[in-house]
Amino acid sequence: MSEKWIYFFGDGSAEGSGDQKELLGGKGAGLAEMSGLGIPVPPGFTLTTEACIRYHASDKNYPPGLESQFAEHLHRLEELQERKFGDPQNPLLLSVRSGGPVSMPGMMDTVLNLGLNREIVDAQIAAGVDPRFIRDCYRRLLTMYGDVVLGVPHALFEEVLAEARREEGVETDYEISADGLERIVGAFEEIIERHGRPFPKEPIDQLWGGVRAVFDSWNVQRARDYRRLHGLPEDSGTGVNVQTMVFGNLGPDCATGVAFTRDPATGENRIYGEYLVNAQGEDVVAGTRTPHAIAPRDGSAGLGDDFPEAYATLKQVCASLEDHRRDMQDVEFTIEHGKLYMLQTRDGKRTGAAAVLVAVEMEEEGSISQQEALSRVVPEQLNQLLAPVFDPEEKQQAVSGDRLLAKGLAAGPGAASGRIALSADRAAEMAGTGPVLLVRDETSPEDIVGMHASAGILTSRGGMTSHAAVVARGLGKPCIVGAGALTVHEDKGELSVGGQLFREGDELSIDGTTGEVIAGKLAPRPSEVLRVLLEGKEAESPTVHAFTEILTWADEERRMKVRANADTPHDAQVARSLGAEGIGLCRTEHMFFEEDRLPWVRQLILAQEEEQRDAALAHLLPVQQEDFVGIFEAMNGLPVTVRLLDPPLHEFLPHDPKAIEQVADQMGISPADVKAKSEALSEFNPMLGHRGCRLGLTSPEIYDMQVEAIVRAACALSGQGRDPRPEIMVPLVGSEEEMARLRERIEGVVQRVKEELGAELEIPIGTMIEVPRAALVADRIALFADFFSFGTNDLTQMAYGFSRDDASRFLPDYLESGILSTDPFERLDVEGVGQLVSLACERGRQTQSDLKIGICGEHGGESHSIDFFETCGLDYVSCSPYRVPIARLAAARARMSQT
Amino acid sequence: MSEKWIYFFGDGSAEGSGDQKELLGGKGAGLAEMSGLGIPVPPGFTLTTEACIRYHASDKNYPPGLESQFAEHLHRLEELQERKFGDPQNPLLLSVRSGGPVSMPGMMDTVLNLGLNREIVDAQIAAGVDPRFIRDCYRRLLTMYGDVVLGVPHALFEEVLAEARREEGVETDYEISADGLERIVGAFEEIIERHGRPFPKEPIDQLWGGVRAVFDSWNVQRARDYRRLHGLPEDSGTGVNVQTMVFGNLGPDCATGVAFTRDPATGENRIYGEYLVNAQGEDVVAGTRTPHAIAPRDGSAGLGDDFPEAYATLKQVCASLEDHRRDMQDVEFTIEHGKLYMLQTRDGKRTGAAAVLVAVEMEEEGSISQQEALSRVVPEQLNQLLAPVFDPEEKQQAVSGDRLLAKGLAAGPGAASGRIALSADRAAEMAGTGPVLLVRDETSPEDIVGMHASAGILTSRGGMTSHAAVVARGLGKPCIVGAGALTVHEDKGELSVGGQLFREGDELSIDGTTGEVIAGKLAPRPSEVLRVLLEGKEAESPTVHAFTEILTWADEERRMKVRANADTPHDAQVARSLGAEGIGLCRTEHMFFEEDRLPWVRQLILAQEEEQRDAALAHLLPVQQEDFVGIFEAMNGLPVTVRLLDPPLHEFLPHDPKAIEQVADQMGISPADVKAKSEALSEFNPMLGHRGCRLGLTSPEIYDMQVEAIVRAACALSGQGRDPRPEIMVPLVGSEEEMARLRERIEGVVQRVKEELGAELEIPIGTMIEVPRAALVADRIALFADFFSFGTNDLTQMAYGFSRDDASRFLPDYLESGILSTDPFERLDVEGVGQLVSLACERGRQTQSDLKIGICGEHGGESHSIDFFETCGLDYVSCSPYRVPIARLAAARARMSQT
Repeated sequence: MSEKWIYFFGDGSAEGSGDQKELLGGKGAGLAEMSGLGIPVPPGFTLTTEACIRYHASDKNYPPGLESQFAEHLHRLEELQERKFGDPQNPLLLSVRSGGPVSMPGMMDTVLNLGLNREIVDAQIAAGVDPRFIRDCYRRLLTMYGDVVLGVPHALFEEVLAEARREEGVETDYEISADGLERIVGAFEEIIERHGRPFPKEPIDQLWGGVRAVFDSWNVQRARDYRRLHGLPEDSGTGVNVQTMVFGNLGPDCATGVAFTRDPATGENRIYGEYLVNAQGEDVVAGTRTPHAIAPRDGSAGLGDDFPEAYATLKQVCASLEDHRRDMQDVEFTIEHGKLYMLQTRDGKRTGAAAVLVAVEMEEEGSISQQEALSRVVPEQLNQLLAPVFDPEEKQQAVSGDRLLAKGLAAGPGAASGRIALSADRAAEMAGTGPVLLVRDETSPEDIVGMHASAGILTSRGGMTSHAAVVARGLGKPCIVGAGALTVHEDKGELSVGGQLFREGDELSIDGTTGEVIAGKLAPRPSEVLRVLLEGKEAESPTVHAFTEILTWADEERRMKVRANADTPHDAQVARSLGAEGIGLCRTEHMFFEEDRLPWVRQLILAQEEEQRDAALAHLLPVQQEDFVGIFEAMNGLPVTVRLLDPPLHEFLPHDPKAIEQVADQMGISPADVKAKSEALSEFNPMLGHRGCRLGLTSPEIYDMQVEAIVRAACALSGQGRDPRPEIMVPLVGSEEEMARLRERIEGVVQRVKEELGAELEIPIGTMIEVPRAALVADRIALFADFFSFGTNDLTQMAYGFSRDDASRFLPDYLESGILSTDPFERLDVEGVGQLVSLACERGRQTQSDLKIGICGEHGGESHSIDFFETCGLDYVSCSPYRVPIARLAAARARMSQT
Repeated sequence: MSEKWIYFFGDGSAEGSGDQKELLGGKGAGLAEMSGLGIPVPPGFTLTTEACIRYHASDKNYPPGLESQFAEHLHRLEELQERKFGDPQNPLLLSVRSGGPVSMPGMMDTVLNLGLNREIVDAQIAAGVDPRFIRDCYRRLLTMYGDVVLGVPHALFEEVLAEARREEGVETDYEISADGLERIVGAFEEIIERHGRPFPKEPIDQLWGGVRAVFDSWNVQRARDYRRLHGLPEDSGTGVNVQTMVFGNLGPDCATGVAFTRDPATGENRIYGEYLVNAQGEDVVAGTRTPHAIAPRDGSAGLGDDFPEAYATLKQVCASLEDHRRDMQDVEFTIEHGKLYMLQTRDGKRTGAAAVLVAVEMEEEGSISQQEALSRVVPEQLNQLLAPVFDPEEKQQAVSGDRLLAKGLAAGPGAASGRIALSADRAAEMAGTGPVLLVRDETSPEDIVGMHASAGILTSRGGMTSHAAVVARGLGKPCIVGAGALTVHEDKGELSVGGQLFREGDELSIDGTTGEVIAGKLAPRPSEVLRVLLEGKEAESPTVHAFTEILTWADEERRMKVRANADTPHDAQVARSLGAEGIGLCRTEHMFFEEDRLPWVRQLILAQEEEQRDAALAHLLPVQQEDFVGIFEAMNGLPVTVRLLDPPLHEFLPHDPKAIEQVADQMGISPADVKAKSEALSEFNPMLGHRGCRLGLTSPEIYDMQVEAIVRAACALSGQGRDPRPEIMVPLVGSEEEMARLRERIEGVVQRVKEELGAELEIPIGTMIEVPRAALVADRIALFADFFSFGTNDLTQMAYGFSRDDASRFLPDYLESGILSTDPFERLDVEGVGQLVSLACERGRQTQSDLKIGICGEHGGESHSIDFFETCGLDYVSCSPYRVPIARLAAARARMSQT
């Protein structure tokens, strides 16, 4: 007996069940579940993902038994529907749709209305079926089949339709007359014929062609790209759903639509969705017609008015589905002559705000536990709630100053400003040099990489569930769709809107929360959540309440501390407001770059006499001390890890003639001398040059001054009854000897100043682990370090041999072609760099079992990296202040997945 | 009972023995051995190294029992000599000399003539002893004691002596009258008194002061520096030898000298040495008087004429010592009233040529085995035999053109040309920017670092056994000593010689084989050994014979193959003549830089149209093919690993305006375009930039062309019945995916060209392991590589985070201060970088047990690194052609030390 490759559903029952996502794919499992619950679902059957895997494993041959099982199930369907597939008099029409274990919107292909040919169409018309309807079905079949199965360019069909609309003087396809459609299908058949393979007349050949196309589509480039970009497995396969057609395009008492059980943008608990009367499902998703809201906010007519009975059923179905699946659902439905049919249900994609609100409200409703609530919010989604918005006043000025160009649908919240790119490829190219807005008529799966690279997405067509909208929300990008006032001339590199012309590279701004498209650049400001947190106010809105709630729960779960990288009292304050439990990286070079200090820093570097150098140091000491007082004060009672000077000295020297002259003047030396010194100090590979502790060892007076400033600042605060907790961190250590000598020197200065001031204070001295060699000899370095802090930025640069400043030359290519699945500067390369991290943890703790270990590279705020740091047993992660909430949640989820 | 801290020797017997070097130090063991053999040695006793270690371990307190044992042994000595230490009537005079387990010339300190004070001197004169003699002994005691034990600057004593010479109108110290000496010792006593601590009147205090000074000297900075530079252990301690004085300064029938049992410069089997009549040992070593040859080549009077009996004894002693110690000896002796006393014997330091000749001749004499012979030649010493010499004609011209400035003693063979530095510090500074000659009156242990940094050493004073000569030979540096025509004005930065004035930074040349000092720069040419090997002739001289013999023996012992890094047929030919068994690294970028190709390479890079690019490639293909034909031909039957293009493309682009214009002209584009492209391609950290396989993946056409050229070249030769063995190597791989994709692409090109040409040929495809990550994921990369080749230069740069181009900013400091004990670019850092090497070997072979692994970084020719590579189980090392002999010997020694 061969394996069971096919599962039947419909008629209030199902062979499969909702928890068989792996086997049936998400769509198949959803259909089985709905069917099992008695929800009205057009009957059909699902070919398993296993069949797809076997198909690809055996060189695109169907596994044994599949074809006979298929015939049996088709027969069962015919019996149930009392129609016969391919029978001109009483034809059964079917759809074929793919569905993998994880939803991949738009990635896989759908063919509707299978089972028609010219003969059947004619016979049906003869039997009294509306010719417009049946011809419309047939032309859709030809289009989709031609496009998806036979590879005919979609645009060829579009041209014919456009021509027909012009001829008949109508706006939309569904206004075209029956005669017009007759001519169109003729033209479509010819196009297909001309393009190579003819359209299969035999319905059964169409059906198998559709199945094979779905199986094949699992392996096309764009599907592989999507899986790569989303870290999905390559070996899961897709299911194929063969389902009886129901028709939303049978007349004005028919419709098709999509709905979310809660608002996917805000999370509000109300049915949210769109529908089109007299249309088939693809019309809603494709964004070619702008659909109606199911339950409009403005009180205008909605689905309840147009289809009261179907709407009531839909509400029941939504409640039942949420109840069973314990999460917000995204459903597709069709209304055929007033009766509702559900075509699909799946967990709904949502914005960060929605994710947080839904999770917290469902916990409060008692549907899910706190841990489940945490598992429902992807940490990066919090970014959307923290992302800056435009300053309302500045935006108001822009709007009243005629800079408001258009309004579209607010498909992805958040504000973005950038240069426009009119193709995905251009967006990817331009993204290397600053923020880009991708502007298209509509997006398609081929655009994924360019969408990824863009700061925001703007389309002239499509609705809230169009490809652009869905993908943008998934990526957390601000997005406006359906901004019909825009005309994109991709070929000319131009965008025209309201009589204004923009060229590729010109600046636009979009507010994805309001749908406004604005000319030029706008300055951002903090989001509502951020404002409330920074001002320390009580939560004003459900969203803010949910945000603070979810982070409170996260704090209860996590083991790792979360610190921030901050160099100023202001940043420290922000970090603390967002929950930072200390500063993991306080860079001191930023202080050196400030305008009032730079001249002294330059004098320090260029000094030819000891007195000049000492004068510079004497000037910088109290200034540095003040810096530290401010930061220690802001972090009172919490640890502040100060990193001693890191960059090579030449970074501080002037390069343009005017600045050179200025410095020369100030120091009473010749500009030529300044230039010569600057050139003498310049380096071929500054990343690997005379910096970090190498500087500390060869020019010890700088570190001496910095350490003195730290100790003096701490003692001063301590004397005022405050609780400063400085930690001194040495950068770029690669060997035991470097650390041993610097520790000795630092301890000497600390001791001297403490004795002078008569103060008691314990100041731990540690090191960054950012040079691969340091990780390899961490057991030796740990002899002289009170703590380690991984500098995973540099560690990644050196382990890969990638200069971050130069990697834009090849990294985009690497990502696009899949040589790298993720950017190792964004997400820690666990396979390679991660080995150095875990090795250093292990060896460091061999020497000192209670060695405190943290990470202060940018990976400290990235959730997948945080997962890995949890497995390494790190004590804390440190990230940029605005990522602290993300890190708090990620640390909690990492801990949960460990225990 | 306390430990035995002291061992007696003398009177034809000894408590210790010659094999107790660890316990007695080299000098003590030699004295014990000689005493045991019945060789005339002034009796004495040795304080053990163990006593020194305990002394330092217990905060400079003598270990229990030492003082009482000391008193017993002193008493025994008095009995034996029938004199009493400190007795004015019959005083025993003693010397105190240090001696660690390993000889450290000049590092440790000696005090002679202990046991004298003003009272004893006067009593002795009253008793009829020659006042000149006894006062000379006393003034020497005061000088040495003042300098070594009490830290009085030596120059203060020198001033007094110089004044005395002037007053008496004599040339040398030993011509000063007894009255003059009386005044001198008075002045010396005052100098010492003035300088702080007075000279101890009590002889026993003098003696203990000397012992303590030796113990203390073990730990002074210069001794630690020497140990660090030579990789000697810090915890071995030094012995102290207390020995009865014999006097070479008792009159014209007295002398003192040093001798080697064979010629330390050439290895020739004859006694070689120098002596001074009526002098003490320090006079010979210090180089203040120029001594006589023991057996002059020119037939002039030698030791045999002056002291026939002592000379006969010396010859017997030398033969007996070589017989017992089975190696060439370096001895010190004194003749007192015609009778020979041996003061020291040790294995003699020797030049590379001498090491090879002595080892081979001793093997042929049957004294030592082949393996022992191999163990007697330090691989780096072979360098001296291969180092270039001046072109005889050019030198002849310079000499006849009045450029011969002076002649000195040829103390270290080899030729060097460079800018002069008049202090060791300056030499170390200047060495960063090109070869330096260190020119001094004489050198001292403080100069070690500067000597290391210099290409050659030249002194105005001293003999073949002076500090400068001994150290230079040890370092393998060309060296001339005793060039009396030179006057060094260190303070003015000037050197005057024969009426000519040179400033620091001016160029000189020295021929350390002939002793000639020549003004200006001279071009070098191959040494005799090299010439014979390159011309494939039979050995003409004993040296060349010994050289080839030792390498033949090495080849029998070693397991690892030795290949060369060579980019041209000429280099390949040289490498093969020197024994290379293939090419481990053939860099293709050098071919791109050649003048006739560079324009095409630039066109390739700057091409805006595909046709321009293709035209450039089409032009480069046959040229590259010819390159490979030449190299494969030179290495017929041996493997040639060709590395595909590695450097970033901007390295090929012009930067100066003229060159830019030229390229623009050639390509018919504007100079601005060329400049823009060049700037667009420039990088912040080119080391970590768009190079190596990253280039191969983003611009595949270049690798395609190179692979095609390799295959075509190999097929062409193959068709002519030759045996080309190319291997294709991909640089800078950091991930499995890079290697997988490039392997697939390369295999495609190989297949295509082979099919086109109808050829059969196996071409292995492998990768460099030079990025730390590659080592970490070597198991995965090995899935797609037929071989690994470590690029330890880049691996060191990235593991340490040191840019080799910039490291001169801090590396000299690091080495000088001991933060690094060796330069990791010269000698592989086994502790850190070595972990990556051994890890990659292990993991690579986990995947492919027979994976071929080599190394082609510069460490491939460095003997300590080769030791490590042997332990890793590498299949071969590859180094620069001229280092192939060194690598062959090092590989043999590495293998021997493993088994």
